Amino acid sequence: VKLYDFKQAPNPRRVRIFLAEKGIEVPMVQVDLGKREQREESFQRINPLMRVPVLELDDGTCIAESVAICRYFEVVQPEPPLFGTDAKDQALVEMWNRRIELNLMGNVSAGFRHTSEFFAGLVEQVPDWGEQNKRNAAKEFGWLNDVLAEREFVAGDRYTIADITALCSVDFAKVIKLRPTEDQPHLQRWHAAVSARPSAGA
Amino acid sequence: VKLYDFKQAPNPRRVRIFLAEKGIEVPMVQVDLGKREQREESFQRINPLMRVPVLELDDGTCIAESVAICRYFEVVQPEPPLFGTDAKDQALVEMWNRRIELNLMGNVSAGFRHTSEFFAGLVEQVPDWGEQNKRNAAKEFGWLNDVLAEREFVAGDRYTIADITALCSVDFAKVIKLRPTEDQPHLQRWHAAVSARPSAGA
Repeated sequence: VKLYDFKQAPNPRRVRIFLAEKGIEVPMVQVDLGKREQREESFQRINPLMRVPVLELDDGTCIAESVAICRYFEVVQPEPPLFGTDAKDQALVEMWNRRIELNLMGNVSAGFRHTSEFFAGLVEQVPDWGEQNKRNAAKEFGWLNDVLAEREFVAGDRYTIADITALCSVDFAKVIKLRPTEDQPHLQRWHAAVSARPSAGA
Repeated sequence: VKLYDFKQAPNPRRVRIFLAEKGIEVPMVQVDLGKREQREESFQRINPLMRVPVLELDDGTCIAESVAICRYFEVVQPEPPLFGTDAKDQALVEMWNRRIELNLMGNVSAGFRHTSEFFAGLVEQVPDWGEQNKRNAAKEFGWLNDVLAEREFVAGDRYTIADITALCSVDFAKVIKLRPTEDQPHLQRWHAAVSARPSAGA
């Protein structure tokens, strides 16, 4: 197997952290999005949608989408469980991971895509939409602070993929100049804790 | 258990079809989004994010997000498998389900949200963003037609949750006046087949 990765992007980081938490090592190939390498024909054969990360299996199967790649490794090596345990816990982890994707990663990404130089000419930017997403992302930091007032981790009392998605979203938000603030102590406490895990540097 | 549902919305339909394919019956409570019932305080206790569907378990736990609810029932009753079988198959189903959500449901929903009377005053509409999404949704119908040229179902040779997401997205696209066209024979063949399953009427 090998993993097509790009160190600076938030979604490949989700997979790297997931693998580090599992203690799994996979050879990586860097695809430089800054140089638009994802648009080259050789990579379009790997993923026609021109996104990283992608996991290429030994039989040539290419699995795109961060959560799909993580799911592959969860089934191959269930311990430690990062997608939840029993039916209820798995459902709650899925719920929280999706809420974080929608409320946090979605707003941060759209804010960046629609206002940044990086995406100018690459996507059809709608600046008003970008600004709305930036404002919403700031609100969602407050929402996540409230969520973390009631529990140690995003989906409960155990570290899961929802924490990985949240960490990558919060850290990526620096591209829209958004950071946890002094009046978000629960978000800060959680962010310090998940950032201190060795996996965070993966 | 009970399921908070709204017959006219696309996401609750995903769960109803999933349950029908599993042969599981669950009592349902209608939450009329047309009357904004999701904003009432009693429902905000069920889901602070004010969305349906939500599954309420007997212990009071509330599980929101369509795919999280489906995941709950997949673990409780694995047969027939709608999230895939082994590690590779589960990963591919997750990949295709997410691609359909992102490319199809995402575009259709944003096209509708940002241009319709229904959402006027409810969300901060950005018409240019809505129109871009409508154009992209039409392109994605062509993309899905190409995908279905190579396989019987969205994720391969077996009906999965990716077909459910795709069916609900394609049918919901009528709100932006988008239907499969004559020059999309693979999409039409697949759409006729999945619509003929008893679950489609759930």
